Order: sequence, then C-alpha cells, then structure tokens
Amino acid sequence: MRTYSLEILEKYRRIPTTTISDALDRLNIIGVITGLKPIIDDVKIVGPAFTIKEIHRKTNTSEFRVTEALNQAEPGSIMVFDVGGYTEASTWGGLASLSAKIKGIEGVVVNGAVRDINEIRKIKFPVFARAITPITGKSRIATVSINTQIEINNVRISPGDLIVGDGNGIVVIPYEKVLEVLKIAMEIEEKEEKVRILVMSGKPIIEAERELGTKI
Amino acid sequence: MRTYSLEILEKYRRIPTTTISDALDRLNIIGVITGLKPIIDDVKIVGPAFTIKEIHRKTNTSEFRVTEALNQAEPGSIMVFDVGGYTEASTWGGLASLSAKIKGIEGVVVNGAVRDINEIRKIKFPVFARAITPITGKSRIATVSINTQIEINNVRISPGDLIVGDGNGIVVIPYEKVLEVLKIAMEIEEKEEKVRILVMSGKPIIEAERELGTKI
Amino acid sequence: MRTYSLEILEKYRRIPTTTISDALDRLNIIGVITGLKPIIDDVKIVGPAFTIKEIHRKTNTSEFRVTEALNQAEPGSIMVFDVGGYTEASTWGGLASLSAKIKGIEGVVVNGAVRDINEIRKIKFPVFARAITPITGKSRIATVSINTQIEINNVRISPGDLIVGDGNGIVVIPYEKVLEVLKIAMEIEEKEEKVRILVMSGKPIIEAERELGTKI
Repeated sequence: MRTYSLEILEKYRRIPTTTISDALDRLNIIGVITGLKPIIDDVKIVGPAFTIKEIHRKTNTSEFRVTEALNQAEPGSIMVFDVGGYTEASTWGGLASLSAKIKGIEGVVVNGAVRDINEIRKIKFPVFARAITPITGKSRIATVSINTQIEINNVRISPGDLIVGDGNGIVVIPYEKVLEVLKIAMEIEEKEEKVRILVMSGKPIIEAERELGTKI
Repeated sequence: MRTYSLEILEKYRRIPTTTISDALDRLNIIGVITGLKPIIDDVKIVGPAFTIKEIHRKTNTSEFRVTEALNQAEPGSIMVFDVGGYTEASTWGGLASLSAKIKGIEGVVVNGAVRDINEIRKIKFPVFARAITPITGKSRIATVSINTQIEINNVRISPGDLIVGDGNGIVVIPYEKVLEVLKIAMEIEEKEEKVRILVMSGKPIIEAERELGTKI
Repeated sequence: MRTYSLEILEKYRRIPTTTISDALDRLNIIGVITGLKPIIDDVKIVGPAFTIKEIHRKTNTSEFRVTEALNQAEPGSIMVFDVGGYTEASTWGGLASLSAKIKGIEGVVVNGAVRDINEIRKIKFPVFARAITPITGKSRIATVSINTQIEINNVRISPGDLIVGDGNGIVVIPYEKVLEVLKIAMEIEEKEEKVRILVMSGKPIIEAERELGTKI
C-alpha cells in the first residue's frame, strides 16, 4: 500500500479542505467531492484511499463484499465506496464501523447511503455519506472491484491517493502531487493567517488584502 | 383503534429500524419510508398509525383540518400525514406539537413540511418531516381523509399499522405481521449481538461472520 | 441606508419567521425564502438588507468582489447574496465571516454555497446558505451589482428591506410594510399565546381554536 509519513499526515490534518481545494485549483487538479455529509459533526480524516467499486443491481448476498474489503484495508487508510450515488440501500453500517474502528481504519467515505447512525455516533467513527437509509445493501448492491481506480463526480481516485475530509467536503490529492499540494496549501494558510491577524486587529478585510497583495 | 400490548411496543422500542427493515426484507414486505428527517436528534417513536391524507391546492382555511385529526387521534398513536411530498407549505407546527404532546401522541410523521422547529425542539416532541418552511398550510393544503389507508413512496399504511421511527428512517409494519416481524427482528438482533461480541474481542468481522454463519 | 429603530428591530427579534410569514400572507406579500439553512443552530437575525447580485461564469479573480461589498455594508445590516442558487463554488467563507462579525454585520444570507463552516461555527457568525463546498468562488463567480434590487425564488429584495431569519427560514419585509406587518404579526402572536395558555391548561387545541375564534 502507498503510505505517507506521519509528518505529512499531521501537516494535512491541520489544513482545512477549503485550503487544499485552493491549492488543487492552482495546479488545475479536479479533486473535490461535494454532497457527502459527515454523520458526526466536527470530524477530520486524513489517509490513503482504499477504493471499492459497487453497483446497484438485483444480486445475491455473497456479492455484497463489504467485510471482505474491510479485511483487506490497512489500518490508517480511508475506505472510499463508489455506489454511483445510489441511496436506496445502505452499503455501510454500525457493525462494520465498530470493526473498522477497532482495526484502526481512519474513516469511510460512501458515494451512496449508510445506516445505523446512532451506533456510528456512539462510537464516533468518521463516516461520510450521501444519504441515510435503514435498508440493507444485501441483495441490492454488488461489490464489483476492490482497490482499483474509481471515479466519483468526475474526480478520479486511485488506491493510495490521499483523502482529506472535514465538514466542508472531501478532497482527493493524487499520490504524486501530495508534497506539491501540501507546500502550496501551507503557503496559502500562512497568507490567510496574516490576513486573519490584520482583521483581528480591526483592519477592514479589503485593506488587509491590499496590504498583503492577496485575495481571500 | 388497533392497539398493541406494552410488551410488544417496548420490544420494538429496543430494535433499530435497520433491523426491522431486514426482517421486513425476509418477508418481502415493502415497509421503509426514507427521506423524512427527525427535527430532534436521537429520537425513537413506536406506535399505531393514525393516518391523514392531504393535498396541496388553493383552498380555504376550513379544509385544513389538522386540529380535527389531532382531536380524533388516540394517545400513544403516531399521526402520519401524507401531503404527497409537497414542501412549499407546512402541515404541522409548534402549537399542534404542544397539544399533541400533552395529549400523549407518540409522534408525528409528515411526508411534507413542518414549521416552528425551535418550539418543537424546546418541548422535545418527535416530528419527522421532508422539509422545514415558515409558510402555513392554511389555504394551501386541504385535508381530504382522516384515518383511511394512505401510501407514501410505495409504502401502504393502514390505520393501526405499527410505525417505528429513528434517525435511520421510518418503517411500517402491517398490523397482521407485527408479531412475525418482531420474532425475526429479535433473532437478527441476537445474531448481530454475537457478531458484536466477537468483533469487540478483536476478531475481524469477516471471520465473525464465518464463525456464526451470518452476513452483516 | 434605510434603517430601523432599535425598538422595531427588537420587536421583530422576538417574533418567529412563521408568524411573520402569516402576517405577510394576510397582506398578499410574497416574502418567504426557503431552502437556505443556518450553519449554526438556534440562530436569529434581524436587519436591513444589503444586497449583492452574483453570477456563475468563468471569470477572473478581480470580479469576485465580496470584500468590496463587505466594505460598503453598514453595521447592523444583513448581506444577502444571490448567486442564482449556484452551489458548485462558495461565495462566502471564514475570513469574511470574521471580518463581518468584527464590523458588526448582523448576518449573511447566500442563495448559493459557503465554506469554512468550522471557523463560522467557532465564531458563531450567523450564515444561511443553500449548500456547503470547499471550492472557492474566485474565477468561478462574478459580482455583478452591489446594493441594487435582487430576486431569490420569486421574492424581490430591495436594499433596506427588513430581513428576518431563523431555523424555519428567511422572510423579507418590504421597507414600506415593516410597521404594518409588525402590527399584524404581534396580533397573531398574542392570539397564539392565548391558544398556548388554553392548551397548556389541558384544553384540546380544536376547542381552544373555537373558544378564541381562531385557527392555528
């Protein structure tokens, strides 16, 4: 599995997805997934993607291979399920969250639906999803590939790409761009911190922008 | 009114709608309503349905018969309003919630919109709705029948059917299936509890599934 | 700028948008904007509108004039951005919120998207928006006019119109109707308070309605 140093992960952990999105913009990288909401508030996840492609179809239970995927995913990784935005049945729930948390999975991102939100909230496991439904994915959702490239809302996600998620959304940083994006994001953060200090001192933000030659 | 023993109600109260949905699946019963959100978090309602059918049309105030319906509904019941998913005006609000709470109504489910959410939150009355709007239903919504069969998202609801609602969604159990569904749901819960114990002990969930011959 | 006396503002502050909506109904005024959600719960804003019209188009950064608008807006006013419901990029964020809060802006309403919700929540600045996204509006959104009449969901908003917002939604009271609407809204509130007292005393709400000759 592609991994990242603790130092890189911790630096990313302190940067909001908004700033990472701005850094991706500068490099013309399409990397923002919107419309997925965290089940618990004030959540932050950072880690390499472990990807799962699923489709909705009448199927049998054995094709719903969520626990097989969980068994393969490494501690620290973020499981990213693409169910094509299908929200009529759930692909992830409370027991899987419990097992994932114990295993050290960083979080789960579902372009689809999840269930058992009380249990997920109780154990505070970070799950992002498009919707919530009580209906199981068994016999309704088939897992078609594990740890291969997927695509959600025009954003391509390869296994090992860095995923960062918070209340604003999910961003995907291609593996080979992780250092470059981090450098730009930290520069943006630094500049914004300077704006913040001027604003806190009572300066109108438009003047702070002019003084620092930036634009928020 | 069709009623249920306290024992049955309390057993259902301890079972998440996700498990009830799984039990309905086994009996091929279509009984899950999605897309309605609770106004207050961590809510659980269990009780027989008292159904109200409404439609949106230019009408006069006298046809908006919400308080008449509330007057007829029995303590312990769940008032289920079908407004056909119309969300441009509200069918339920704060004063009705206050009166319903005092009367002992278990909760309200609206396939439409509600208002006065601060008041609803303050008195902690369980209301599920598709949307929130300040606009009144008076002169915009007509009550067309009280306590007759309705249908929301392909789920048929007869007066007295058992309604269970929580953060995951709303499930409808036909009156004549209430004991059978309960039995299956309790078996599923028991099996899941066994999985939970194995997972808590550190066993990968896929192995717990194999050991117990189940699939989450 | 059109202003309102503190007395008028404080009276409006105690009235829910639901009641104001009812008062607007009586005068046949279209004044309710729905679908915009507050970033922080239990929020209430009251103040004259400072309007900004924006459109989504490929543009350059200099056309994104949010801080210029903020510089012009008066303390106590509510900045209302119409981005035509476009939610793929954000028009307002954390630094602007911080600056607006320090300046004494009452709140921000966006028919579009915002970002930096953690920061917005931390400083408790009232922001209402249609969606949340990490993506910046720079180069994606152009400011086309500042403090001219705009229209959101068929509701016309002129600079200085009174805006009131809470968890139920946003209402717009035309400048010249502010006293008339207030008078009607206070009468409705008074009547509802009488209903509330009867209901609290145990009277069925339908009887309270009859006794008081009103309809909730």
